[in-house]
Amino acid sequence: MNEIYDVVIIGCGPAGLSASINAKIRNKKLLLLGVELCSPKLHKTPIIYNYPGLPNIKGEDLRQSLIRHVESMGIEITKKKADGVYSLGEEFNILCGNETIRSKTCIIATGISYGNDIDGEKEFLGNGVGYCATCDAPLYKGKNVAIIGYTSEGEEEAEFLSEVCSKVYYIPMYKFSSKLKGNIEIINEIPLKIIGNKHASGILFNNSTLNVDGVFLIKETAPMEQLVPGLELYEKHIKVNRNMETNIPGLYAAGDCAGKPYQLAKAVGEGQIAALSAVSYIDKMKH
Amino acid sequence: MNEIYDVVIIGCGPAGLSASINAKIRNKKLLLLGVELCSPKLHKTPIIYNYPGLPNIKGEDLRQSLIRHVESMGIEITKKKADGVYSLGEEFNILCGNETIRSKTCIIATGISYGNDIDGEKEFLGNGVGYCATCDAPLYKGKNVAIIGYTSEGEEEAEFLSEVCSKVYYIPMYKFSSKLKGNIEIINEIPLKIIGNKHASGILFNNSTLNVDGVFLIKETAPMEQLVPGLELYEKHIKVNRNMETNIPGLYAAGDCAGKPYQLAKAVGEGQIAALSAVSYIDKMKH
Repeated sequence: MNEIYDVVIIGCGPAGLSASINAKIRNKKLLLLGVELCSPKLHKTPIIYNYPGLPNIKGEDLRQSLIRHVESMGIEITKKKADGVYSLGEEFNILCGNETIRSKTCIIATGISYGNDIDGEKEFLGNGVGYCATCDAPLYKGKNVAIIGYTSEGEEEAEFLSEVCSKVYYIPMYKFSSKLKGNIEIINEIPLKIIGNKHASGILFNNSTLNVDGVFLIKETAPMEQLVPGLELYEKHIKVNRNMETNIPGLYAAGDCAGKPYQLAKAVGEGQIAALSAVSYIDKMKH
Repeated sequence: MNEIYDVVIIGCGPAGLSASINAKIRNKKLLLLGVELCSPKLHKTPIIYNYPGLPNIKGEDLRQSLIRHVESMGIEITKKKADGVYSLGEEFNILCGNETIRSKTCIIATGISYGNDIDGEKEFLGNGVGYCATCDAPLYKGKNVAIIGYTSEGEEEAEFLSEVCSKVYYIPMYKFSSKLKGNIEIINEIPLKIIGNKHASGILFNNSTLNVDGVFLIKETAPMEQLVPGLELYEKHIKVNRNMETNIPGLYAAGDCAGKPYQLAKAVGEGQIAALSAVSYIDKMKH
């Protein structure tokens, strides 16, 4: 049986980092999960005027300060992507590819993805459309699939699928310059729509149609309702109360994914509240 | 007619300072009110470990960084104490002694007072017990009053009352070494209870009773429900939603007064949300 964490924090932006600092101070066994760069949004911000105490700081400088703060406390950022969070009542199972991580509580701090869905994405979700190739690969053994990659992580997924599927098409939605192993065809066109009847059967481009048995969209963050089955949303954000509690006991959310305004100080404050709520929940479990 | 502010922020701790930064960035006409030292709590904290980006910072250093941040943006801290906040529908009237300040919105960021009430304080409130001597002085013309001063501000109030009342007793609850002008008798004893029938008529000490017609308690912060008539509370804190809105339209709260945990990052985040909510409220008023 795997060890069980007190808190697993999903996301290493300002909210997740703040949550990790507070969980660590309270001596909790924590795992901080992040994908690629922690906070690309902060990285891209030229100057931040409204983070009290650090006036007129470059986004990248503040990003590095936050990372250094966390590292100075001995907190590691584990480069894994959570594909699913499942509440089993007394504990959570968090799936990262083939691995299952156990935790008493979980904090979602995944930010929001600014990209719009493409036509048909929601309609065929679960019927030929998915967000985790690793998870659903067995369904497509010997079949033809397309991967729409919003981040370079899509490349790994494509290579993995090429071992299982008959044919894999990779459609990069970012500046792509890599070479992929395996039987993968790169398509440098913008997908307009996922088509099909009850089940996805292809992708429509400007001048062509690609027939496939399944389509995967690899985004930096899986849509919230997909990541956590049963999670209650409110206007596209995770619904939380003032303690950052979601509708699922032991599950918290903080930062942009928990609602507007999309601001740094708010995210940091919410990360703190979420961590302290999780700590209090764990402490009550003991009695 | 006085000028009207967009936002009046009451309190210059982390929540109030953060609110002021965000209101200023959004080009709002703002007034930031503070009494004595901005954030004595921060001043007294040896080291803060959980303000992300500034690891292991001395409380006083962070306090000064916050003040410098605000000052660098041209925000002044106005040393006035709000005695009452009244919603008139389209605007607020904020009373500071004899002065009335007008504002479209108001943010309460007064923190919480750790001191307990003394026996009889709540019971006789409005019946011989009050929190603002300046406001209620006319009621006590030619009478005997006692002032229980929790901060040195009580001294001014005592001197003012001595011009109006027949006899003034001053009971300092802090290290007192000043000289007071006027006909004021200093009592260096701890008040145990405010006594009376339907109206306060005296103060009980360990070995004696002082008969007076009125008792004023001068605290750093007036109790919330006293400061804002009609304000809805929840377990001793101001009740707010995720946008930091109170039950009174245009009125927001942030920081410790809006609930636990009593933490810096939370206060800063909430100050930001409150300011942005106020800005959005003002912008909607125009249409």
